[in-house]
Amino acid sequence: MYSFSEIYERYQDQIGTVEFPQSPENLYGSITYFLDYPGKRIRPVLCLMGNELFSEIHPDSYIVANAMELFHNFTLVHDDIMDRSAIRRGRPTLHVKYGEQTAILAGDLLLIQAYIQLNKIEPKYKGRIFGLFSEMACQICEGQQMDIDFEDRSIESVSYAEYLKMITLKTSVLLGAAAKIGAIIGSANAEQQEDVYAFGKNIGIAFQIQDDFLDAFGDTFKMGKQAGSDILENKKTALLIKAFELADSSQKMQLKEAMCKVGEDRIHTVIGLYKELKVDLWAGRAIHYYTEIAFNSLDRIEIPIYKKEKLTELANSLLVRQS
Amino acid sequence: MYSFSEIYERYQDQIGTVEFPQSPENLYGSITYFLDYPGKRIRPVLCLMGNELFSEIHPDSYIVANAMELFHNFTLVHDDIMDRSAIRRGRPTLHVKYGEQTAILAGDLLLIQAYIQLNKIEPKYKGRIFGLFSEMACQICEGQQMDIDFEDRSIESVSYAEYLKMITLKTSVLLGAAAKIGAIIGSANAEQQEDVYAFGKNIGIAFQIQDDFLDAFGDTFKMGKQAGSDILENKKTALLIKAFELADSSQKMQLKEAMCKVGEDRIHTVIGLYKELKVDLWAGRAIHYYTEIAFNSLDRIEIPIYKKEKLTELANSLLVRQS
Repeated sequence: MYSFSEIYERYQDQIGTVEFPQSPENLYGSITYFLDYPGKRIRPVLCLMGNELFSEIHPDSYIVANAMELFHNFTLVHDDIMDRSAIRRGRPTLHVKYGEQTAILAGDLLLIQAYIQLNKIEPKYKGRIFGLFSEMACQICEGQQMDIDFEDRSIESVSYAEYLKMITLKTSVLLGAAAKIGAIIGSANAEQQEDVYAFGKNIGIAFQIQDDFLDAFGDTFKMGKQAGSDILENKKTALLIKAFELADSSQKMQLKEAMCKVGEDRIHTVIGLYKELKVDLWAGRAIHYYTEIAFNSLDRIEIPIYKKEKLTELANSLLVRQS
Repeated sequence: MYSFSEIYERYQDQIGTVEFPQSPENLYGSITYFLDYPGKRIRPVLCLMGNELFSEIHPDSYIVANAMELFHNFTLVHDDIMDRSAIRRGRPTLHVKYGEQTAILAGDLLLIQAYIQLNKIEPKYKGRIFGLFSEMACQICEGQQMDIDFEDRSIESVSYAEYLKMITLKTSVLLGAAAKIGAIIGSANAEQQEDVYAFGKNIGIAFQIQDDFLDAFGDTFKMGKQAGSDILENKKTALLIKAFELADSSQKMQLKEAMCKVGEDRIHTVIGLYKELKVDLWAGRAIHYYTEIAFNSLDRIEIPIYKKEKLTELANSLLVRQS
């Protein structure tokens, strides 16, 4: 069994095999610019680990891992345009550096390139994996649309159930699908495939709620970003949505007033209300709840425990940032 | 053999089989809005005709026809954003009606849905058709990037050869690929597939040059749009690019001065210079040249002539608008 860093290294060696033409220079240059500063490669590594639970890593898993990474980058490029984000991985976003027109095309091309990768795998499971991949791709677009729709709605009109659906579609199904497709290539049976999917998806949900939690309650130094940035944007996070669900009418009024304050004052007042409403404790329980579902799914898979250790490590590395 | 309108009707009956979910309403509503006002369906019909040259229409050709139409609409939705177009098919463009964020996602979803369709065809040629489709998809993105890049360049720096490459990639390969994939499904041999591709591609090039020609020299009433709109935008058409290639230094100066004039004055002066440089005659020859290549390709295919009649009719209906 390989560790995360070993699998990461092996994957890094492989990704060089995805080659792009030189021309048009702006288009392919922008893609190279974006891919040259990679993220944590969690999705491709999950795919490889999903395979390795059941058999030695098959070359097709590296291909799917590439497809997953290209697809993930497609979503980032287009999301950055939609969200008007200026910085990604410490550098100007693709649309800021190359213009929005090229960014739309670069995203489109990354999506097409993901499908080009998928077309290289063995025919025996190609149709099935294509189907799963496309279903996941639709869900991610749906999740992003829900997120966009949330922006135009009042905070009180968005329920925690809707929030959960949104983050599940927007971010978690990709982790589930990456791990599941790896498992399919590794010849897992149907039940095992579902358990692997549930593991990835629920780790994703826990991670997303944790992300919201850390923005308010995390250690600024450890996170590497300013605490309270979500609060400063009045972003509809799990915490804010849950706070409104838990608040009585007087507390709702206080929350709304707090959301109109400026800078540190807003952060302190909102966090104070979160604590009063015990939203911090609630978030801890929610993170624990989805983590448990994930690990229970992994436990159900009847394979030697040592084979699961790397996935457990990966999950823990994603979920212990608050400690 | 079916006529264009018969094939169109048969295709129309089939496209209802592509169903979208209801939610998120904005996202799928925007797609339905866009698809409800269809274009001329040239690409799906070409695919079905490409099949019918060689055998009875196979159900897979309807599926690919749907994929082609969904893909074409994906390019239109994203191109409209990039080109800041406000009107398409007589109605507000998708991004004008639903906002740019939803338009980016709607385009992405149409592309994914095209792949979902393709995944339904028989395995025996699925990999091959997937490959061709994705190659074409990349080329179209490249062509659109070239078009975008042209905007920032001086008119004298863009050669007719580059223009040809741009329109070939941006619009013509889709016609070639639609017809070729139909031919593959119809069990055409490799040589026949290439001839069908060349037919579609070169009809596409001829049509595009004709489009530029008609904007300057066409009958406003017949075209249904204002003549000279390209000239008013100083758009880098085949005519303007060729005019600069044919002009001596004094005529180049006159062209540049004409491009600074306003309204009808600009149109009349530029058209006057086009005539002086015989760009109108040149364009007629260019259209004829690519039409000939297309028909020669069709002629080379050794099948009974009556089987080719509908493709000939389709090509003529696209290319005789100036008469």
